[in-house]
Amino acid sequence: MARLTDRIAAANADALDRLARAAPVLSGVKDARTLVPALSGRTLLHAGPPIAPAAMCGPMRGAVLGAALVEGWADTADEAARLLDSGAITLLCTHDHGAVGPMAGIISPTMPLFEVHDATTGRVACCPINEGIGAVLRFGAYDTTVLERLRWIRETLGPAIDAALQKLGGLPLIPLMARALAMGDEMHQRNIAATALFVRALAPHVVEAALPAATAAAVLRFLADNDQFFLNVAMAACKCVADGLRDIPYCTVVTAMSRNGVEFGLRVSGLGAAWFTAPAPVPDGLYFPGYGAADANPDMGDSAIVETVGLGGMAMAAAPAVAGFVGLRSAQDALVTTTRMSEITVGPNPHFKIPALDFAGTPTGIDIRRVVELETEPVINTGIAHRRAGVGQIGAGVARAPLACFQQALAAFAERYAT
Amino acid sequence: MARLTDRIAAANADALDRLARAAPVLSGVKDARTLVPALSGRTLLHAGPPIAPAAMCGPMRGAVLGAALVEGWADTADEAARLLDSGAITLLCTHDHGAVGPMAGIISPTMPLFEVHDATTGRVACCPINEGIGAVLRFGAYDTTVLERLRWIRETLGPAIDAALQKLGGLPLIPLMARALAMGDEMHQRNIAATALFVRALAPHVVEAALPAATAAAVLRFLADNDQFFLNVAMAACKCVADGLRDIPYCTVVTAMSRNGVEFGLRVSGLGAAWFTAPAPVPDGLYFPGYGAADANPDMGDSAIVETVGLGGMAMAAAPAVAGFVGLRSAQDALVTTTRMSEITVGPNPHFKIPALDFAGTPTGIDIRRVVELETEPVINTGIAHRRAGVGQIGAGVARAPLACFQQALAAFAERYAT
Repeated sequence: MARLTDRIAAANADALDRLARAAPVLSGVKDARTLVPALSGRTLLHAGPPIAPAAMCGPMRGAVLGAALVEGWADTADEAARLLDSGAITLLCTHDHGAVGPMAGIISPTMPLFEVHDATTGRVACCPINEGIGAVLRFGAYDTTVLERLRWIRETLGPAIDAALQKLGGLPLIPLMARALAMGDEMHQRNIAATALFVRALAPHVVEAALPAATAAAVLRFLADNDQFFLNVAMAACKCVADGLRDIPYCTVVTAMSRNGVEFGLRVSGLGAAWFTAPAPVPDGLYFPGYGAADANPDMGDSAIVETVGLGGMAMAAAPAVAGFVGLRSAQDALVTTTRMSEITVGPNPHFKIPALDFAGTPTGIDIRRVVELETEPVINTGIAHRRAGVGQIGAGVARAPLACFQQALAAFAERYAT
Repeated sequence: MARLTDRIAAANADALDRLARAAPVLSGVKDARTLVPALSGRTLLHAGPPIAPAAMCGPMRGAVLGAALVEGWADTADEAARLLDSGAITLLCTHDHGAVGPMAGIISPTMPLFEVHDATTGRVACCPINEGIGAVLRFGAYDTTVLERLRWIRETLGPAIDAALQKLGGLPLIPLMARALAMGDEMHQRNIAATALFVRALAPHVVEAALPAATAAAVLRFLADNDQFFLNVAMAACKCVADGLRDIPYCTVVTAMSRNGVEFGLRVSGLGAAWFTAPAPVPDGLYFPGYGAADANPDMGDSAIVETVGLGGMAMAAAPAVAGFVGLRSAQDALVTTTRMSEITVGPNPHFKIPALDFAGTPTGIDIRRVVELETEPVINTGIAHRRAGVGQIGAGVARAPLACFQQALAAFAERYAT
């Protein structure tokens, strides 16, 4: 019988090999209920590990109320709150249904989602369309402007992007994302290159999709005004890739890191669907004028799926412009961050390379053993939400995936595989 | 009376100050004859210092024949050649008429040009629209495909971009270019970020310009398929900025570097319109498969105007992806190149900053005294043209502005200003 370390090494190599073969393609935009069969009746998905309605943080609760209003389950926020508190709304985890969502991550049945499928395996993953900044559902806002924008996204933007994608025949995402990484995006806090490349690829097809000119212009303007538009596409792509690494026996690679605004949760390939949780940290970073740490909600959202496959904080060295934004002092600090992350990962990313490091691949495949041994917590580049529903983003910074999650996971791994 | 070195220092500081205040805006696309009054009758502009028709290199001669055909001055290439050789076509320098052109740089009366005006001074500069790669006029090709594409650019693309720019109210270029520099473009051999940002900004207005949908789609597709599209916009912007530094007494800063495929020419602020010339070098770089140095035309085109104001080779550290493409070995070499260039320039660029150098400005304002003293020739990132008309680009590399030009210029400066 092979030694345990050899089995783990083979399993982790298999994970990186699956990642190398992944070929996520943005194939369309579809209703959430089409992509997620569990979304029947009054059911919503939320970001992070499971959480009871009563335990939800302010922004997530606000987003639930907004979703109930958009779906027409309630006419007022009070009515929606009564539904939620009475247990009449079923809440499920995004990550259990091939989905990811930013911040609160609320996905409702009629919400249009980006559909990404892996051309190699056929696996599908999805994520909502980015709403822009300011008062938006993902930060728990549900005023009239927010709901009207969501309806416009559902009735107009989603179908227009879908029509353009059908004209295009799908958009392979790895080449675009690799290119954007070489253009200073780390694809978590900075997506301007990816967004611009996305618009450039899609624009002719938006025009050819037989939309009224005013609609085509409105769609292109919405994309032009939102530097983070691509983040949600990247999240769907990363979820698609990460799900391909799940359930490999003996594999110590992390397949999901996510936060529900209260707890941080971790999944590990060899340990299936189990979540290993700890209190979600408050990110360390910079606040917009007028805000400070006392206003901050603990870390929230499924967006750390990008770090799970070698982007975001792992790729800090690719994006020195992000370094200052998240509180690092220099481009050198960004290089140091990426170098530290290479100590807790299985290997260099075969797709995503960093010009400033002479095109070395980003650190990829977080190995729970290395995290525990070195006590080096994975770095997550993240936005900071106000703890009150609907205020929105109040800063940006670096969150560290709690060591406690990795320690629990390693203990469970030892129990399961050590004989 | 102030010492000469003090006067030079004050003049050079004035030059950098003018550069800091420049605010080039892409304001439209107009016929060359509208922007350049000298383009009446059978007159063309060409890149670089003045050259007699008989002395022209193959690609420039081919481009002249193509332009004569597009303008309807001749029905066949032979007829066009007879016109050129008989002296029936007047040839003038782009740089004397507020214009720049890539490679052969041929500008004919009905050719649509990007119009850039400086919002601070009102100064105007212009450049043709990028034709794409392969067989194109700027490399001396003039077959039917080339001429048809030029007609489409004249009848369709130029007017569409102009209409979109009028809807937009003009596009300020410094913010876009500064952003693209932070995204890995050095804006000579790499313009993908700038092009994508340009498309993103313009796309809604292309759609709103009341064009037929098929035209709007064709325009957006042309832009989507050409990673170097923005180069020509950048050239017009840089010409607009550089012309603002001309004719400052005692100023030792270079205001133009350009090549006609035979000679390399230099202009210096304190020395007016005089060209200081030397044989154009063959760039040192990498060749596409099947080609080598024996096929290469000496360096050609007005595109070195971007190095004149701190982009291209000066900004190599911003674009490690270019380093390999032009024959450098590593990102470290790119940093070294930019650091070397800072030794021969007046100061850091106030607009264009490099994330990898913690947002230090690019080396800007080439000082002829420093070049001569250190014998450090300015680096120009350049495409390599086949010496035969119409073959096109056969490689890319680094050309060095010949020291002899700077030595001549410094001698002329001493004669003029030393008393």
